[in-house]
Amino acid sequence: MPTIEIRRAVYEANDERAGRIRAGLSSRGIFTVNILGSPGAGKTSVISRLAALVAASPRPRPVAVIEGDVASDIDTRALRALGIEAWQIETGGDCHLNAAMIEGILGRMTLADKSWLFIENIGNLVCPAEFVIGEDLKLVVASAAEGSDKPYKYPTAFARSAACVLTKTDIAEAVGFDEDFFRAGWEAVSPGAPLFPVNGRTGEGAAELLSWLEEVAAARPEA
Amino acid sequence: MPTIEIRRAVYEANDERAGRIRAGLSSRGIFTVNILGSPGAGKTSVISRLAALVAASPRPRPVAVIEGDVASDIDTRALRALGIEAWQIETGGDCHLNAAMIEGILGRMTLADKSWLFIENIGNLVCPAEFVIGEDLKLVVASAAEGSDKPYKYPTAFARSAACVLTKTDIAEAVGFDEDFFRAGWEAVSPGAPLFPVNGRTGEGAAELLSWLEEVAAARPEA
Repeated sequence: MPTIEIRRAVYEANDERAGRIRAGLSSRGIFTVNILGSPGAGKTSVISRLAALVAASPRPRPVAVIEGDVASDIDTRALRALGIEAWQIETGGDCHLNAAMIEGILGRMTLADKSWLFIENIGNLVCPAEFVIGEDLKLVVASAAEGSDKPYKYPTAFARSAACVLTKTDIAEAVGFDEDFFRAGWEAVSPGAPLFPVNGRTGEGAAELLSWLEEVAAARPEA
Repeated sequence: MPTIEIRRAVYEANDERAGRIRAGLSSRGIFTVNILGSPGAGKTSVISRLAALVAASPRPRPVAVIEGDVASDIDTRALRALGIEAWQIETGGDCHLNAAMIEGILGRMTLADKSWLFIENIGNLVCPAEFVIGEDLKLVVASAAEGSDKPYKYPTAFARSAACVLTKTDIAEAVGFDEDFFRAGWEAVSPGAPLFPVNGRTGEGAAELLSWLEEVAAARPEA
C-alpha cells in the first residue's frame, strides 16, 4: 500500500537526519534530552528546575531549551523571563517535533560546546514517541493528576524513555493517585529504568534527576 | 506533493464515511458526542457521571460508550463495572479515532434507538481534533491540573468543540490554576460557547452539562 510505503520513507528520512543531528551535537559535547509528556504534565517546570540547578552549580555548563508547541510561545517567554535561553518551534498543527524542525532551529541558534540541550516536545503522549530528533535520550514526564494508568495506556512513550519524571505528587492524595500501580506500569514497560519524583513548584527531586543525567552524559562514549 | 495529496484523500474519505455514520445514527434518534481531552483530563469520569444521571432520570434514554485507547481496556472495564454499556477500540498505536474504526465497532454493537452514544477519543489534544467520526458535536474536557493555558496552546481541539468541560477544579488552588485566563482563552477560540465545570469525583456540575446536551439534542433537526 502506498500510504505505508510513504510512512516508512518518512520515518527513514527522519531517522537519518536525526542521526546526523545527534552526531553533530555529540561531537561538540552537547547532551540532548527530548522531553515527552501530556499537555500540562509539568515539562516546562521540570526544565526550568534543571536549568536553575545547573546555573547554580560550581562550574555550570551552558543550557539551551527548544520549546515545541502546536501554537503559542507561552513557555518560551516563561523560560526567558527566568533568564533561560529558549527557542520556540510552533508547528502550526503538527502533533510532534521531527528532525527537520530541529535541524532548522539549530541553524539559527549559537549553541556553546558542552551545553545541555533540553527539547520540550509537543504535549502529546502518542505521536512524539515515534520520532527521534537527534536526542541522546528521551525523558517522559507524567503528573499524578493524570492518573496512575498512563504507562499502561501509552506504553510506547514510556517504553522509549530512559527515565520517567513523576510530577505533582503533592496533590496525589487529592486526586486519588495510586503510585504503586503507576510504578508497576513503568517497571513493566521499562524494566529497571529509574523514576524520579520531581516537584515542579518547589524543585524537590530535581537534583536527583540532574545527577542521573550527569552520570549518563559522562558515560556517553565520545563521538 | 504526493504526501499532501494523500493526506487530503485520507481526510475526504474519512469525512464521507463519518457523514454516512452520522446520518445513520441521526435517523434512529441517536445523539453522538465525541469527547476530546489530554491523557488524564477526566473524560471517563465525566462520561460515567452523565451516564449515571441519565439512568436516574424518570424516562431514561439508553446510553452506550465507545472507549478509544492506544492500548489497554482499563476504562471500558471501569465503566462496565458501573453497569454502563462500554465497547473498546484499541488502536495499537494510532493517535486518534477515525470514522472507519467507529463504523467497524458499530457493526458489532446493538444500539437502541434514541440512545446517547458517548465516544471517548484517544487522550490527545492534537490529532483527534482533525477527524470527524460521525458525531453530532465534540466536547473538550480539560483539567485544572493541566494549567490554564491549554486553549491557547491547543486551539484546534478547543475551537472545534461545541462546549468545554473543566474538571478537577477542587485542586485549582493547589496547582495554581488561573480560571480567568483559561476562560479568556476558551472564549477567544470559541466565542459564546459554554463552559461547564464538572467534578468527576462528586458529580457536581454534571447535571448542567447533561441539561445542555439534552437541549442541543432536542433542537437537532430530525434526519
